[in-house]
Amino acid sequence: MYNTPESASSKQPSLTLREAFAQTEYILPGHSDRNINVLQQAFADIDGDLSSDQYGRGQVIEDFQKQMADVLGKESAVFFPTGTMAQQIALRIWCDRHNSAKVAYHPLCHLEIHEEDGLKELHHIQSILLADQDRLITLADVKQMDQDIACLLLELPQREIGGQLPPYSELQAISEYCRKQGISIHLDGARLFEILPYYQKTAAEVCALFDSVYISFYKGIGGIAGAILAGPSDFTAESKVWKRRHGGDLISLYPYILSSKYYYEQRVGNMEQYYKEAVQLAQWMNKCTAIHTLPEVPVSNMFHIHFELPKEQIEPILIEMCQATGVGIVQYLTDKKEGAHCSTELVIGARYEHVPQDRIQKALAWLDQRLKEVTANQ
Amino acid sequence: MYNTPESASSKQPSLTLREAFAQTEYILPGHSDRNINVLQQAFADIDGDLSSDQYGRGQVIEDFQKQMADVLGKESAVFFPTGTMAQQIALRIWCDRHNSAKVAYHPLCHLEIHEEDGLKELHHIQSILLADQDRLITLADVKQMDQDIACLLLELPQREIGGQLPPYSELQAISEYCRKQGISIHLDGARLFEILPYYQKTAAEVCALFDSVYISFYKGIGGIAGAILAGPSDFTAESKVWKRRHGGDLISLYPYILSSKYYYEQRVGNMEQYYKEAVQLAQWMNKCTAIHTLPEVPVSNMFHIHFELPKEQIEPILIEMCQATGVGIVQYLTDKKEGAHCSTELVIGARYEHVPQDRIQKALAWLDQRLKEVTANQ
Repeated sequence: MYNTPESASSKQPSLTLREAFAQTEYILPGHSDRNINVLQQAFADIDGDLSSDQYGRGQVIEDFQKQMADVLGKESAVFFPTGTMAQQIALRIWCDRHNSAKVAYHPLCHLEIHEEDGLKELHHIQSILLADQDRLITLADVKQMDQDIACLLLELPQREIGGQLPPYSELQAISEYCRKQGISIHLDGARLFEILPYYQKTAAEVCALFDSVYISFYKGIGGIAGAILAGPSDFTAESKVWKRRHGGDLISLYPYILSSKYYYEQRVGNMEQYYKEAVQLAQWMNKCTAIHTLPEVPVSNMFHIHFELPKEQIEPILIEMCQATGVGIVQYLTDKKEGAHCSTELVIGARYEHVPQDRIQKALAWLDQRLKEVTANQ
Repeated sequence: MYNTPESASSKQPSLTLREAFAQTEYILPGHSDRNINVLQQAFADIDGDLSSDQYGRGQVIEDFQKQMADVLGKESAVFFPTGTMAQQIALRIWCDRHNSAKVAYHPLCHLEIHEEDGLKELHHIQSILLADQDRLITLADVKQMDQDIACLLLELPQREIGGQLPPYSELQAISEYCRKQGISIHLDGARLFEILPYYQKTAAEVCALFDSVYISFYKGIGGIAGAILAGPSDFTAESKVWKRRHGGDLISLYPYILSSKYYYEQRVGNMEQYYKEAVQLAQWMNKCTAIHTLPEVPVSNMFHIHFELPKEQIEPILIEMCQATGVGIVQYLTDKKEGAHCSTELVIGARYEHVPQDRIQKALAWLDQRLKEVTANQ
């Protein structure tokens, strides 16, 4: 028997990387498929007679807001459908208080690249970009800011550059400087719980450096959607007015609140494990030919994988790897260095511990071998 | 045995109207309690492997949007977390296209009284109020509008005045006039399905009179939350950009989408029954002393009950009625006519058919008797 063109083509080039990844026996990143079961599981044991929240009121929402305010060490907290909404509103409030329409953040801040310029289009707030896009904001950057900035937003970890973190002492110095200068400081803590094992701090200790903080429930926590914005009581009270203006004051947010609570309680204690697993996996990956991770040693449960070859060369290899090894590591690739390199993001969650270590190592050995062949031929 | 002051006080004045209402054997309005069971029921039979929508993409959201676009007879439809968000965005798009920042609507429009002025604060759009607040917008009002209005919003039925409707011919004339004048016309159809039995029209027939339409899934449909905005494809494409700006482009909206679909399919066929039941109940209520309904003959499943006495006189009677008859009709009262009268809203849903007719009539006879006594003593 030989492969007809049909069977050959049905075997490999017809599958996208995402499809090949989804069909593997073992998927490395994440918690689980994003499917309806995530909701069904969270609601299976909840008493059906429990009343819905109603336009931001009621036990379901108020209890969780109180719980999160306590965790974050803030006076008050408000549940939002999205971080996009929560953070625009946080910055708007600080701008109004400082009577300035300028905020400062990283060039790859979520507000700058993922929100269709909502901050500018809806709130007419100008963003001042600090640092270069491939490095963290430093104290020196902050000290060079205009003095009419209402608020500095820091994202911890800086997701778009692999989830990097400043030393904690620098964070403290930035916070101290802002407070001395009367500049508000807001934490984009979408992945706050993920960084606590590295800093060896509590959430409240980190949040104490900030005037307001946003956290997300569908990243490391693995909920369905939803966010918390926390800060002083007068700040959160004002945020509720803006939440209604944005159309975020839903009659019922409980599908997100109760699932956030469920997965928070299930996973917040696992962040150290995910972090250590990321460190181990990155170490293995850095031994592969033409691969390096960013950061080289992860500081949370995430890192970026950089392939030192063009996407069109790497993609078929990764598709083949899924099929040959049954291990799915990468589900998409992004062009880097004008197409000379490519990269992807990897986030460790609940799945990783169920993947046999030898299967991961065998898959990486397979990948290393293929990359050796490719680079040798260049 | 006689009632001690304690037991007497525990019997009546200690309960609020809302509490007494909730404790009745038969509740007249609505579909069910707003509790977690509403979600659990909708998700009980859904395959757990079904994939979540992802930032507005995926089968779950695209199929439902297509279904609703077809129902409404529009090119395209977008699922939104709230009507507040959907309608502000609709008006913003029409304003941008007309290069005007003026829209016209009723003085008791949802955007004017329930949204913390989001339209003005976020979009800087000015509202021109048509008609008086106690009557419907007429063709004459529309003809007197400034010519630089970008969009006219009509709410059908006009909820805050009991759910009134213009004659269908007037609606057609208003639509025709707007189109001739190049003014966009948007339908606040939060209760669109509820009015179709009165007009004897399909949703698509009514929507054909409008350039864009919003519908809600937690009023007559009785879902958890969520809305659809429908219109031309270029309009809905633009609305998705604004949805992201508002923070409404959740990674997963399926908790609302799938429950909306579930309850839509369960209840959209019942609107004629709810409407007829409302007509019957209003007729009975209008026979009670010191009560009239608005409209006198309902044109949908809703009406307002007006009591021709002050709230402080009516409230204890209604609490007593809940306890004496076991039938809950009214759960809150709003002051009217500077405190001389009071009113409430009544919406018929799935519950009504399970209440024995004789219990309703006995309860109303009890109420009529008490109101006779009170008015006789004045």
